[in-house]
Formats: sequence, structure tokens, C-alpha cells
Amino acid sequence: MRNLFAMTGPRYTPLIASLPSTVPFVGPEVQERERGHAFAARLGANENVFGPSPIAVKAMQNAVPETWMYGDSASHDLRTALAAHHNVTMDNIVIGAGIDGLLGSLVRMTVTAGDKVVTSTGAYPTFNYHVNGFGGELVQVPYKNDMEDPDALLAKAAEVDAKLVYFANPDNPMGTCHSAEVIANMINRVPDGCLLVLDEAYVEFAPEGTAPPMNPDDPRVIRMRTFSKAYGMAGARVAYAIGHSGVIDAFNKVRNHFGVNRIAVEGALAALADQDWLESVKARVHEANERIAQIAGAHGLSALPTATNFVTIDCGRDGDYAKRVVSELVARGVFVRMPFVEPQNRCIRISAGTKTDLDEFEIAFPEALKGAS
Amino acid sequence: MRNLFAMTGPRYTPLIASLPSTVPFVGPEVQERERGHAFAARLGANENVFGPSPIAVKAMQNAVPETWMYGDSASHDLRTALAAHHNVTMDNIVIGAGIDGLLGSLVRMTVTAGDKVVTSTGAYPTFNYHVNGFGGELVQVPYKNDMEDPDALLAKAAEVDAKLVYFANPDNPMGTCHSAEVIANMINRVPDGCLLVLDEAYVEFAPEGTAPPMNPDDPRVIRMRTFSKAYGMAGARVAYAIGHSGVIDAFNKVRNHFGVNRIAVEGALAALADQDWLESVKARVHEANERIAQIAGAHGLSALPTATNFVTIDCGRDGDYAKRVVSELVARGVFVRMPFVEPQNRCIRISAGTKTDLDEFEIAFPEALKGAS
Repeated sequence: MRNLFAMTGPRYTPLIASLPSTVPFVGPEVQERERGHAFAARLGANENVFGPSPIAVKAMQNAVPETWMYGDSASHDLRTALAAHHNVTMDNIVIGAGIDGLLGSLVRMTVTAGDKVVTSTGAYPTFNYHVNGFGGELVQVPYKNDMEDPDALLAKAAEVDAKLVYFANPDNPMGTCHSAEVIANMINRVPDGCLLVLDEAYVEFAPEGTAPPMNPDDPRVIRMRTFSKAYGMAGARVAYAIGHSGVIDAFNKVRNHFGVNRIAVEGALAALADQDWLESVKARVHEANERIAQIAGAHGLSALPTATNFVTIDCGRDGDYAKRVVSELVARGVFVRMPFVEPQNRCIRISAGTKTDLDEFEIAFPEALKGAS
Repeated sequence: MRNLFAMTGPRYTPLIASLPSTVPFVGPEVQERERGHAFAARLGANENVFGPSPIAVKAMQNAVPETWMYGDSASHDLRTALAAHHNVTMDNIVIGAGIDGLLGSLVRMTVTAGDKVVTSTGAYPTFNYHVNGFGGELVQVPYKNDMEDPDALLAKAAEVDAKLVYFANPDNPMGTCHSAEVIANMINRVPDGCLLVLDEAYVEFAPEGTAPPMNPDDPRVIRMRTFSKAYGMAGARVAYAIGHSGVIDAFNKVRNHFGVNRIAVEGALAALADQDWLESVKARVHEANERIAQIAGAHGLSALPTATNFVTIDCGRDGDYAKRVVSELVARGVFVRMPFVEPQNRCIRISAGTKTDLDEFEIAFPEALKGAS
């Protein structure tokens, strides 16, 4: 037998060999294990603590005994229901294991070594992870007044001949939002050969009319939606993309056809049908957001207007200070996160929580501010 | 506004543009929609109709209300339990959304345009799908006596300087199996710079001792295991790979860190802990397999020995005939599949079913044979 330790092991592709082993986000469970105990309030991942519709819960529980079967590779029923909901055809919809999974497939479909991709500095890191992971070159445009900047993004996309331009509306991590008119106008100005990746993960929380009408004949934009946020099913891993049927069909070249959990799909179908629950969740999220803003105000800090299920609090000083505030909150059992880059990193980001969660936050916040000073 | 129909849409990578939109398997639901009614017996996807442990069912149902939370990106608890089960460390284990997902990541990590990958003609099509999807070149070696041929595979891998060599033990679609000695010997002869992808999806059904001992220091092999088959959780999408910590860590460069369903992970933990249920399932599968062989025998046909939860019946004529038998069974509401290539395509493949399932098969089979003649 040969000496195992002398063996080289597999040969990775040059691209993979060049990549770091990074995780776009350190999850709360990972932090809990490092801390040695659980968080008292889980307000850092923009999860929807109000959870899925009770009807969806029941549907998922009923689906559990059938989990011996693979799911439907075509996700026929869910695509049909979503098509009706959005007034498009099922050929305009692809289901994936979360927007993260869909973004990975989309980047793989369009980006190869040296291709340019435009995004905002400090926007969704998992998108960047995929672009790097397929050898693309990220070109970044700064935020403008804590909002993503459509004009600058489009100008940069044209300038560098970008394959993709990423835009989240509402935005994460800032929670800000552009109007439907701005977005519709943006879609109309996407440079030829470029695809606008419109991430609408939070759009159900935004004011009515934030999403421009669907136009499935338009090959310039693909829109990402999810059951993780307003529908309260982050752990289920069901999301979908809406776009031109040609673009949607191209996912069939790369996707994991049997990759979506069967229980989750049943839950998504039931959740979509219970729009009353969605409305009640939006009201509770709105209330929680208001309270977070009040808590910030009570300490002389301002909260940015939000169109999401989280509130970005401007801590009023630099990134180091905000980072200390986050650490102090985490040390007190309140899991929160913050934007990664200047000048947005003067802020911290608090997800809408239950009354108990926000009680914890209300107690911990002044102590954290004091500890950070 | 520009004319949408004049627009080019996104620019795909040259590789993606060259790929067909294929599905490695047409799922039973897709066939049911085409047929216009449901199958009476679902015996074509090697699903485990005896289902997950009742304790796992309960664990999943209990986990449903917590699906508002993302899963643990590190899958700490499941990796810890699996490490104990297999007597390795958690650094030797990566969790993925089914073996399909893990194979996709592994191919992406190792295979780029023009790289050679060796497999058996007629072996797992989803592996081939991934190799094609990343621009690799498949080099195929025929089966020998309805078994994958270790010597020929290794010789070919050395000859073409393959990055990967795929080997399933037990084999799908034939159900045959090599001994632990053969596999251990195969691992010891993997050419330098090649990785043996040992797909053990069905190994829990195989005779005790079929799997050689784990040696997590060995960088020449990665072993794929799943909760889809013996644990009865195909729809849950939880699988894992066991290998050298360096190889396992490389998955962190490409994987969808939050991509595994939270409910499924709870189910997997409970299923793994209930080895008594696993034993009872194995006994029932064994019984069902015997009955399938008897049914074949009653019509003068022989069943191949099986180490899986399916039985391959040699229909004794050519591929066209076997294909007609499959069609006739499908037309009678019995979902089955068959091997894709000669000479294995003289056979059809029947998954172990319940008594009712096999009653359906027993009735339909002679009619199908007659119809096919």
C-alpha cells in the first residue's frame, strides 16, 4: 500500500484552486456554538419570526409521511399556482432551492472567466460569492444616499459590457426601496446583452405598487422571489425566478432537477394560497419595525425608512463603532448583523421580531451602546 | 420603448449555449400528467416505499413550525452524528441536497473544459449530466457480466489521465455488487491525481461488509451516502459525502451554504438514530425483492441478484422488447424504468414495493409481456 500522506489527492480546476473557502454569512447556530449558548433573540438573518401560515404548517406536516417519494422534477403544481398569482405562464417560472441556489445557476449560465458583472458595493454577498465562484469579475458601484443607484449601475454595465447587473429592490442590507417607475425605467435601459437580476426577496413587505408589472416577454430582466421572507419559510428552501421563457428554459441545462424538498413545495403551495396570513404578517412586521425605530429614537439614533422586515439603525459614528455595537448585542444574546462596507457600515440591521425578541433588544441596546463607546 | 422581440436577451457562456435542455430522468409525476391519471404502483425510481422511521416522521413534523429559520450552514449536529456513526471526524463529512447536488459540486470543483472523466456505459446519468454541464469529456467503459468493471475503469482512468472515475457499489441500474475486498483493492489502485467517486447510495441494502472500512486519510476516494434510499427520505434531499478533510473542505468554496432544508436535517438526525427501523426496512425490502424475482420466475424470466431495493429482470430479448415491456407496464399504471444501453437494456428494473404495489405488478406483468410480444 502506498503512503497516503504522500498522495496528492484530486486535482482541482485552476479556478477552484484559486478560491478561498469562505462562507458568505456566518450563521447564528455557528455563533451560538462559539458563544456556548443560544441567542435570546434571533434578529440578524432577516428571518420572519411570525412564521408560515398555519395552513402551510399543516400542509407540510401532512406531506411528511410522503417524503419517501422524490419531488416532482417539473414542480408543475407550484409553477401553475405561481403563474396564476403573477399573471404569467408556467414557462416563465423556475423553482429553486432558495434565491441563493437560483443565483448560482444563473451566474453559471452566463458568467465565465473574465466576464464582468456589476453590483453595488456592499450588496448581497452571496451573489458575489457565485460570481467569484465562476470566475467572473465584479465591478462595484457605490450606494447613493443609502440606496442602490440605478443610473450608476446601468452606466457601469454599459461601460464594462457586463453580462449581469444585480439590483435588489427593496435593498438588503439597507432596507431602502425604489418606486416601480424607477425600476420599470431601469429595465428599459438595460444595455443589450446584459441581464438585470432583480432580487425582490423582500418585495411583499414593500408598499403596494413597488414591483413594476410583470412582462414575461422581456428578456432583459429576471426577477427573483422567495418563500423565505414574507411567507416565513427560510428553512424550507423554495424560491422562484420569473423571466422570459427562453431564459427560464436555460435553467434546465444546469439545475438539479430533483433538488427541491417535497415537503417545502407543499408548504409553498399552501402559503401562496393563504394571502390573508401574508397580510397579517405584514401588519405585524410593520408594527415591529416601528418599535425598532422607536427604540433607536429613544437613544437619539435614527432608523432608515424600511420597505422590508428589518430596520437599519444609523449608529451615527464610524464602522468600528457600529461593529462594537453589534458585538455588544451579540454578547448579550441578541443576534444582529450589519452592512459590510463604508459608509453603510455605520449602521446595524435589526430584523422585525416578536414582542419578546424586541423586549430583549430594548434592554440590550442601551447597554450595547454604552459598551461600544 | 424598444421592441422586445428584437432583443437578444442574456449572453450565455459558450459552454451553456452548447448544452441541450435535458432532464436526466423524466419523473413519475411528469408521466402521470402525460397519461392523465396517477400510477397505481410507483416502482420506477427506486424510492423506498416503506418510508422513514416513524420517529423521523415525528421529528420532521415537529420541525415544521421552526421552518421560519434558515438551517445551520455548518450542519453541525448532523455531521457530528454521522461522524460518530462512521467513526470519522466531522471534518470528513459534507452535507448536500441529495447525492445529485454533491456530485454537481464535486464535478464543478475538479472538471473544466476538456478534462476527462471515466464512468461505465449506462451508469448514473445525472453524473454524466454534471460532467457535460461543466465541459468535461466522458470516457465510458462497458459493464462486464452486468457489473461495473473496476479493472477496466482504472485502466481507462490511467490511460486518459482522468480527473474522476465514477463507480457505484451496489450498482444502479443493475443492482449488482462487488465485495469490500474488490473495492478496497480498487481504491488502492486509483491513479495519481484521480479521485474515485464511490457512490454508495444503496449500500445499506447490501450484505453486511460490502462497504470497505472508512479511511478518512485517503485522498483518493470520496464516498457518497444518502438518506434518500434505505432511510426512506428521497423527497427530503439530504445526502452526504465522506472523504479526506482537504477534499471535504473544498466543497466550502462552491456549495450553497444554506441550501439544505431544515426539516430534512431534523429528519435525517432522527432517522440515523433509529437503526432498528432501518433493519426492519431492509427485511421488508428483501422480502419484496424475493417476490419480484418469483414473479419474474413464474413467467420463465430470471432476476439478477440484487444488493439494492430494486430487482433487475432479464426479459431475455433485446432492448426494443424490454422497452415495450416498460411501456406496457406504464400503460397499466405500473411505473418502472429500465437500463439505457446495450446489453443491459434487455432488462427492466422494479423497485421493492408494498404488497399492494407488487399485487399490481403481478397482475400487469404477464399482460405487459404479452402486449410486448
